[in-house]
Amino acid sequence: MSFTLQILGSNAAIAAHHRHQTSQLLTMMQVPFLIDCGEGTQARLKKFKIKSQRIDHIFISHLHGDHYYGLMGLISSLHLYGRKKELNIYAPPGLKEIISIQLKYSQSSLNYKINFKEWTPGESQLLFENVNLTVHSFPLNHRIDCSGFLFREKPKKRRIKKGLLEKDISPLKIISLKDGKDVLDDDGNVLLANKKYTMEPARSCSYAFCSDTKYSEAILPHIMGVDLLYHEATFMEDMRDRAATTYHTTTKQAGEIAKKAKVSKLLIGHFSTRYKELEPMLEETRSIFENAELAIEGETFSVE
Amino acid sequence: MSFTLQILGSNAAIAAHHRHQTSQLLTMMQVPFLIDCGEGTQARLKKFKIKSQRIDHIFISHLHGDHYYGLMGLISSLHLYGRKKELNIYAPPGLKEIISIQLKYSQSSLNYKINFKEWTPGESQLLFENVNLTVHSFPLNHRIDCSGFLFREKPKKRRIKKGLLEKDISPLKIISLKDGKDVLDDDGNVLLANKKYTMEPARSCSYAFCSDTKYSEAILPHIMGVDLLYHEATFMEDMRDRAATTYHTTTKQAGEIAKKAKVSKLLIGHFSTRYKELEPMLEETRSIFENAELAIEGETFSVE
Repeated sequence: MSFTLQILGSNAAIAAHHRHQTSQLLTMMQVPFLIDCGEGTQARLKKFKIKSQRIDHIFISHLHGDHYYGLMGLISSLHLYGRKKELNIYAPPGLKEIISIQLKYSQSSLNYKINFKEWTPGESQLLFENVNLTVHSFPLNHRIDCSGFLFREKPKKRRIKKGLLEKDISPLKIISLKDGKDVLDDDGNVLLANKKYTMEPARSCSYAFCSDTKYSEAILPHIMGVDLLYHEATFMEDMRDRAATTYHTTTKQAGEIAKKAKVSKLLIGHFSTRYKELEPMLEETRSIFENAELAIEGETFSVE
Repeated sequence: MSFTLQILGSNAAIAAHHRHQTSQLLTMMQVPFLIDCGEGTQARLKKFKIKSQRIDHIFISHLHGDHYYGLMGLISSLHLYGRKKELNIYAPPGLKEIISIQLKYSQSSLNYKINFKEWTPGESQLLFENVNLTVHSFPLNHRIDCSGFLFREKPKKRRIKKGLLEKDISPLKIISLKDGKDVLDDDGNVLLANKKYTMEPARSCSYAFCSDTKYSEAILPHIMGVDLLYHEATFMEDMRDRAATTYHTTTKQAGEIAKKAKVSKLLIGHFSTRYKELEPMLEETRSIFENAELAIEGETFSVE
């Protein structure tokens, strides 16, 4: 499969109804990314048998406590578990100061290095890149600086058709074919026509994370056509005014964003504690955008 | 009863074996005191059905994360739950800065006021006093500045013997008797002899909290004769060297402190994660000081 997203927490503000604050583990092209880190995230990682030492990249959307109060504990535990390899934190301005001051007063020097990569409020930036994928920030519209994140696989290489090539073909020729080139002989004649031996590349998948934000069509260019969109839906539709004044989104608004962005699937979360039962929230969302799901803690969503 | 102590967490450094980081709720003379606040303390308060809004006084022993990482989340939740009354935090130097910087970046102004009462490292100070009790700090010997806390009921008034006084006796006369005075008539003659109508006051109880510290007899004057002593015992006796280099205490050393301080009862805690089973720790402690117990999460210890 192309990527999986496991929900570690999806309640707003405080823990309630056995739901915890925002955190998710995205695994794309074998790289695990932790997104937000509410209090007790490390306990949830443990509960779901996710090895925290495998995580090298943590993205924090903003500095409201329900999105990062678990980070300091996780950092300390990684140290106590003997971590040596570097940890990359893609952070809002201020987070480095918050962490550094706590390390200073505890007189702790970590066994490992933290690389703080600060995103710039109001901008879309390339935060992470490897051979297979990129991660970009993009601005959300919240009460304080807040960033969404777009995880996107890079365009893939062409696929070799099975059973047509001789078994002892050289790796260099395979690479040429995957790169979309014909294989030529020494005189420049076409030996293996690319069109004959290869198929279109597999589709490149993408995941967008939007929390917290008021309804904002300004995010559409960033999330257009993604395979999976996580969008907060703190309130139901009858609280649209309250959603606006608190810089949050309603169920139907999240559905509207998903529809306008032509995404394949929508996942709603960041549920207000006032909602014990979530099915009505899902129904409202689906009245606008059918392929929607609830971000239920512990569940894993896969995109093939 | 005179006081109760409920254990909310007693593991060292990280959560393990269903044990969490240090936190306790002491209720003395109807006042609940929260002592230390490891990550997830608010979840434990909820689990044990303790109303967090009743807590007006929080004591933090030092700035290692396992003793305070849950504080910021608790402060935020109290705000979200609508708290208006002031919260008093008896804090090591630095804690105010750590909390203030997080409130600054979240652009949150709390609905209630926090009074930071900083204790001075290396000194014993009166931190809290009401009509019934006092709380003093006293220095522990840890890797960073760390304070123990002594909670002590004030001397109580004499008790009236039952069935001897007339029923319509005036409240003023009762007060005189409780204060240890005779009641005189207008000519100055003894009307009610104190000795006849009163008994010795009830004993004043005391609780001492010592975490984290290496073995240190310097604390003895502060904890002498307390009814209940909580003393860390991070390691078993075979790790005495490791205890010393990490500024912690062993089971037997905790027992020795309890014996030398002539306390009534000893509670050990702050167990290293290396110990899944705690009974051997208790046995070792009891080999030195018989009336010892384990600080097991959820258990309540009462002193009459």
